[in-house]
Amino acid sequence: MDDHFPSEGRRRVVIENLQPRFEDGAFPIKRIVHDPVTVTVDIFTDGHDHIVSLLRYRADEKQPWTEKPLEPQGNDIWRADLNISKIGLWQFCAIAWVDHFVTWRYDLTKRAAAGQDLAIEFQIGANLIAPIAERAKAKHPEDAQFLADQLLRLRSDRPQHERTEIALGGHLEQLMIKHADRTLATQSKVQEILVDRPKARFSTWYELFPRSCGEPGKHGTFRDVIAKLPGIAEMGFDVLYFPPIHPIGDSFRKGKNNAPNAQPDDVGSPWAIGNHDGGHDGLHSQLGTLEDFQALRIAAEKHGIELALDLAYQCAPEHPYVKEHPEWFKLRPDGTIQYAENPPKKYQDIYPFDFETPAWQSLWRELKRVVDYWVAQGIKIFRVDNPHTKAFPFWEWMIPEVKKAAPDVLFLSEAFTRPRVRYRLAKLGFSQSYTYFTWRTNKAELTDYFGEIARPPVNQFFRPNLWPNTPDILHASLQHGGRPAFLIRLILAATLGANYGMYGPAFELCDGEPREPNSEEYLDSEKYQLKNWTWDHADSLRPLITTLNRVRREHAALQHDETLSFHPTSNDAVLAYSKHSHDGRDLILVVINLDPFHPHEATVEWNPALLGRHLPMDYEVRDLLSGANQIWHGHSATVVLSPEHPAQVFHVG
Amino acid sequence: MDDHFPSEGRRRVVIENLQPRFEDGAFPIKRIVHDPVTVTVDIFTDGHDHIVSLLRYRADEKQPWTEKPLEPQGNDIWRADLNISKIGLWQFCAIAWVDHFVTWRYDLTKRAAAGQDLAIEFQIGANLIAPIAERAKAKHPEDAQFLADQLLRLRSDRPQHERTEIALGGHLEQLMIKHADRTLATQSKVQEILVDRPKARFSTWYELFPRSCGEPGKHGTFRDVIAKLPGIAEMGFDVLYFPPIHPIGDSFRKGKNNAPNAQPDDVGSPWAIGNHDGGHDGLHSQLGTLEDFQALRIAAEKHGIELALDLAYQCAPEHPYVKEHPEWFKLRPDGTIQYAENPPKKYQDIYPFDFETPAWQSLWRELKRVVDYWVAQGIKIFRVDNPHTKAFPFWEWMIPEVKKAAPDVLFLSEAFTRPRVRYRLAKLGFSQSYTYFTWRTNKAELTDYFGEIARPPVNQFFRPNLWPNTPDILHASLQHGGRPAFLIRLILAATLGANYGMYGPAFELCDGEPREPNSEEYLDSEKYQLKNWTWDHADSLRPLITTLNRVRREHAALQHDETLSFHPTSNDAVLAYSKHSHDGRDLILVVINLDPFHPHEATVEWNPALLGRHLPMDYEVRDLLSGANQIWHGHSATVVLSPEHPAQVFHVG
Repeated sequence: MDDHFPSEGRRRVVIENLQPRFEDGAFPIKRIVHDPVTVTVDIFTDGHDHIVSLLRYRADEKQPWTEKPLEPQGNDIWRADLNISKIGLWQFCAIAWVDHFVTWRYDLTKRAAAGQDLAIEFQIGANLIAPIAERAKAKHPEDAQFLADQLLRLRSDRPQHERTEIALGGHLEQLMIKHADRTLATQSKVQEILVDRPKARFSTWYELFPRSCGEPGKHGTFRDVIAKLPGIAEMGFDVLYFPPIHPIGDSFRKGKNNAPNAQPDDVGSPWAIGNHDGGHDGLHSQLGTLEDFQALRIAAEKHGIELALDLAYQCAPEHPYVKEHPEWFKLRPDGTIQYAENPPKKYQDIYPFDFETPAWQSLWRELKRVVDYWVAQGIKIFRVDNPHTKAFPFWEWMIPEVKKAAPDVLFLSEAFTRPRVRYRLAKLGFSQSYTYFTWRTNKAELTDYFGEIARPPVNQFFRPNLWPNTPDILHASLQHGGRPAFLIRLILAATLGANYGMYGPAFELCDGEPREPNSEEYLDSEKYQLKNWTWDHADSLRPLITTLNRVRREHAALQHDETLSFHPTSNDAVLAYSKHSHDGRDLILVVINLDPFHPHEATVEWNPALLGRHLPMDYEVRDLLSGANQIWHGHSATVVLSPEHPAQVFHVG
Repeated sequence: MDDHFPSEGRRRVVIENLQPRFEDGAFPIKRIVHDPVTVTVDIFTDGHDHIVSLLRYRADEKQPWTEKPLEPQGNDIWRADLNISKIGLWQFCAIAWVDHFVTWRYDLTKRAAAGQDLAIEFQIGANLIAPIAERAKAKHPEDAQFLADQLLRLRSDRPQHERTEIALGGHLEQLMIKHADRTLATQSKVQEILVDRPKARFSTWYELFPRSCGEPGKHGTFRDVIAKLPGIAEMGFDVLYFPPIHPIGDSFRKGKNNAPNAQPDDVGSPWAIGNHDGGHDGLHSQLGTLEDFQALRIAAEKHGIELALDLAYQCAPEHPYVKEHPEWFKLRPDGTIQYAENPPKKYQDIYPFDFETPAWQSLWRELKRVVDYWVAQGIKIFRVDNPHTKAFPFWEWMIPEVKKAAPDVLFLSEAFTRPRVRYRLAKLGFSQSYTYFTWRTNKAELTDYFGEIARPPVNQFFRPNLWPNTPDILHASLQHGGRPAFLIRLILAATLGANYGMYGPAFELCDGEPREPNSEEYLDSEKYQLKNWTWDHADSLRPLITTLNRVRREHAALQHDETLSFHPTSNDAVLAYSKHSHDGRDLILVVINLDPFHPHEATVEWNPALLGRHLPMDYEVRDLLSGANQIWHGHSATVVLSPEHPAQVFHVG
């Protein structure tokens, strides 16, 4: 007869609902180093026996566990604070057991208070101590000695009150817990915390095509970019991201404005990676040498700017992989390699990898080697192109493997795709993610979308990075709204998102020209040609960008997304939201006119006390954009906003 | 070098968020046979390939899976309806794979529409069919033949439009899916559904001490209970639950009103189980023989009443287990067996089992044997005494094991303990659970508590059974509120809960006499003595009980708890709530005065349209207690309620 017994039926303690986590701990939660982490967990057992509960934690899975007590909060909830003191993949869990000594000690106080005869109780206690004293002998002889002494005293014929005092000794209890028999202890599932450096949560990105940084009409170089660094740094950016800088393929090269056939002097799309010069670990020769690149990287560093590279896992037909590893691609029956398609459209300049290849292991190994190579070159931030067209198991493996050796590496997911796909990529380890912000322009859209991504469970794993434009996306609002639309989208991105970025020159200079009506493609896009930017245009957003980025650096409230709250306004064209620092001292209220064509007035209703900030009835607010002060009274205020000055960014109190 | 590769890196489909479930599927969800179950699940892959997704299900784990298609709902959500056609522990999961044939077929339509040359495409399609035709050969030769034929036609030199027609054939696609290679398919975790008979959700309990059913002053018998059956059936009860009916111990027997020392003629507590006559599978000799018990069970059945026994896993000192299996108990240093305690209180008439005994397997086996024994005697409902003082792993094992052989067995958990402990027991398999209803009397308490237990996740695993009183609990409101308090608590229990019960004679006859002030113990409790009930008292609640139970039988709205909604009233003493049948046709609105001392008037605000019921501006309501009709207008109605007629139970429209 098969009884279907569990292997151990005497594990009486139940551990449930370990927090923080989401999806029952299937993925790590994300935090920044030194973030306060409060662990709570439900722990209980049958009956009335007492439980000892500990938090176990470690900075990586190879270390032994450190333990600290979980403290009961009532109603079977226990808690402890965890100090995540360095970056890496932390682990924590709870362990607990029914402790018969602790139970016995607790009961003894009640029996003693009731004046009961305790003779047999002392025997019971001594019998509980004996095996623990024995256990402690080998490694902690002094503990074992102390326990053995107490045991003898309990078994002695000393007066009851003396033996009671011995039984209740604090050190005795400590040692009994320290050396407790954990055979029947219950341990929870292990929860992981992906602990990143602060830039994962707070970063300011500028995207630039290095080849457009040269003299007019000439192909720019890494050295040319060095000359741009002071201006970018002055504006307050701390990440400078380049589209791919690798050799560009020739076959089926696209011409200007994505023309199917390139002219001889067309420079091609940098996303068509690889030619006879090399592939993903090579440099496009017209940009310069590895030495030039390093000079640029070091110069940027001196300006407080980190370079971010584009990780676009695809090949041009001349990529060395195609000859060396045809097994990584799909073959067509005619023996040619399968190009990218979206039938009936063909993209013959691009060969995608086949993630179902039997040679997936060597493919994965090589793709990771590319990252490791650039990490060795000092690059710690990667913007990943179309990660949603590569197999999820690859990211799930690659990102943690890279971070094992280099935990400060960050990956930004460029996945403007379906919500569940984007969230899955974030769960698998991407440090930051592009968002739908690019297409969310009215009040309801913004409120709904940020209501979703700024709250659990999404904010446990998904760190938004807000882009008002990219080289691929010139949103209709920027095509039609003129300079005010750029102002609005800039202020929203910089204040709604602790991470934000822009495809720099085009945004800064208010380029709103599409290739054709109803297209999100730029006219004369830099994706296919060199571009001559008039860097010092009078309409440039440079002053506002500089102000906003300074405000972001000066205000902790804007350096994370957790406290974002929307507040009702009397006008659907006006959006109001606040963010505040965790200590409540820095409180920012943004009121913004979303209509680039008309001025609007609105009354904002808000209650700072609900945000943890208790203010007098009359309090001062200062618009950080204009520098003007006002005195507000109570819970509402009226604001007038023009298209030319669409927002006020108030520092409160 | 260890690459830490997963065993298979090419499983490209992701399956998430299989519903319904709670706690990520750690426990079965509970349903009643024939309940509609709609399964939804998020399924997606990288890129643009097409997915085939199936729901797999079976009525128990030993059967092979049945499969049916999951249908895409957009936004990566898939769905299928599951027909749970019999009781048992069902299983379901989702399986899905990237299907290259389905993808190819979809792309082909677009290529054909664009007028492209498809020669190579037909080769690709044929290459996809070839291995599947080969796979099908052994078991489905006719399918294999069809596939082979289509393959040849695709490879032939027929005109492109003919080959396109062949490629798009519906039967070809069906067979390609039927025989698809699932090597790289993803399967979700398996979710279980504990499917019970309808009584698990809708039952009406009457608790009775058989020993009090005799002639005044004489110990009642099973035969005496038979005489009470017509009255209990007339009132509309369908479960008759007895406190333990086993032999009662002598040592340390408690006297009347829990006196520490029994008098020679004291009958003792039936929860002190076991003496020289036998234990948990024996019958107390004064109640009758097994034959008498069977006569009672069969007589009850004829009245539509099922007997429920009390499962109290504890022993009196004379229980046969104590001698035969001392290893199932804790020993004290003096060689005696450890009695129950709540220091400094001692309960020397009770020996608890030691669930940490090394002999736990033989203990578990015996405890289950007791249940199996009574199941063999025709008992299918057990009210489990203090399950929270027995180890959780035992219930987790025992309940499913019993139900494997007898899936119609139901267990009611008597655990008036901490919320997480009670919920854990429900998760482990208890069919119904006692609730805090017994102590929730005012409007806020009732609204909060039922707001919690009637909603997910709690209603996925916890089926409340509402008791206004038990032999252990005479709530203060019944001590002080007189007959109106009994009316109120009765109507609440019968209409808030699809399962409800009462400690019958005491409730029916409005016994509100506590042993002492501020005690919840009854004076002259039946737990310790025979009781002489005046069954036909003029104040008896019998008429109202009869009406309420008839209303419950006649109205589907009251036979489940899922649609419970509270509605605002203008008076804190008046509670209003509705329930409706799933088809919306049966709609009940209860308006009840919670104050047993004063009449109250209240205006109820409600909107039947929000409950799915669209009514004309003027509609009829009928009070099912008084039979009186009214015409209501719009979304509010004013009701006046006296303590003597504290509620109106309206059938609407």
